[in-house]
Amino acid sequence: MNNKISEKVINRLTLYHCILSDYINKGIEVISSKQIANLLHIDDSQVRKDINLLNNSGKSRVGYIVKELKVSIEKTLGFKKTKKAFIIGAGNLGSALANYGNFTDYGLNILALFDNDSAKIGKLVNNLKIQEVSKLPQAAKEEDVDIAILTVPGKFAQSTADFLVNANIKYIWNFTPVVLSVPEDVQVWNENLMGNFLQFTYNI
Amino acid sequence: MNNKISEKVINRLTLYHCILSDYINKGIEVISSKQIANLLHIDDSQVRKDINLLNNSGKSRVGYIVKELKVSIEKTLGFKKTKKAFIIGAGNLGSALANYGNFTDYGLNILALFDNDSAKIGKLVNNLKIQEVSKLPQAAKEEDVDIAILTVPGKFAQSTADFLVNANIKYIWNFTPVVLSVPEDVQVWNENLMGNFLQFTYNI
Repeated sequence: MNNKISEKVINRLTLYHCILSDYINKGIEVISSKQIANLLHIDDSQVRKDINLLNNSGKSRVGYIVKELKVSIEKTLGFKKTKKAFIIGAGNLGSALANYGNFTDYGLNILALFDNDSAKIGKLVNNLKIQEVSKLPQAAKEEDVDIAILTVPGKFAQSTADFLVNANIKYIWNFTPVVLSVPEDVQVWNENLMGNFLQFTYNI
Repeated sequence: MNNKISEKVINRLTLYHCILSDYINKGIEVISSKQIANLLHIDDSQVRKDINLLNNSGKSRVGYIVKELKVSIEKTLGFKKTKKAFIIGAGNLGSALANYGNFTDYGLNILALFDNDSAKIGKLVNNLKIQEVSKLPQAAKEEDVDIAILTVPGKFAQSTADFLVNANIKYIWNFTPVVLSVPEDVQVWNENLMGNFLQFTYNI
């Protein structure tokens, strides 16, 4: 695995992977950089440059072999290395993520949801049990989980993050609109929806 | 408005803005670049560099004046320019976004949700009415909406995108795990959750 692939390239490779999955479903065997570029409204030289970073040998005269390119991306991005995670907050957003189609294809294995609302405890979301949040530390230990997907309401975000840090969670995928204060050895990925919206609409 | 601010900077400025809102709620009047940097686990020289891009005059001997810095970010990123949008797909994800705390503070005004499930039509989510999706083209025209937030299941993503394009939608914020094929004059922002997860966990 090449640790030097930039975040932007990882992001684009994942989108290429979506396109390739779709081509496979449609029974199409070959794809050109131009076809990928057109779908993403980017330059095809960019696509070729990204694909050159992979150990991809599946190139024919007319384009890339869809199945081989897909496997090359999976190998490079480590899709096959399964990472276990818990969702904290079984509201709409947590439920949506638990149901989000193809996480497992990408190595994300969500084991359970946690909430503090007794009305939700024991219910199933996409076959995953909603558990009482107080049981999280023990479950994290037993199942060796150090990734948490945080989908609680903003006002509970920091206190829940403190609780997760105490439970030895080391990676927090933060879907709340709050910047969390955590120790140096805990990593937070801010799913900064507002920032994304502002980027998207900046030139409107 | 400076059109040359990069996407990464916009993203970080939005996170600084979250921190500043939190400081205002706590009644704290001054913040240092070091405090912002520590919360985001980044370098404080980066924070100072980003803030230097703003027309921010609110600097005291001990740091930035929280309220003034917040306003500077809002002015630079155009928060005050309200952008109207519809949510397409009133499932868990669409409902979560309709409820997502502070979109309006950032200029995103969600007017309605649309769905094709008759059981949902007429219900309210965060005071927004769920409407029959066939009514979207007329509503988009009447209310001058050209931004759609797409939260339908993946298998309906492309057909719904085609429908939106026909309804003269020009910006699609795509939360589905599908790369959409749209004409050149339509912009798609892929909320590429899998790509984000892979970036976040790449070095685990």
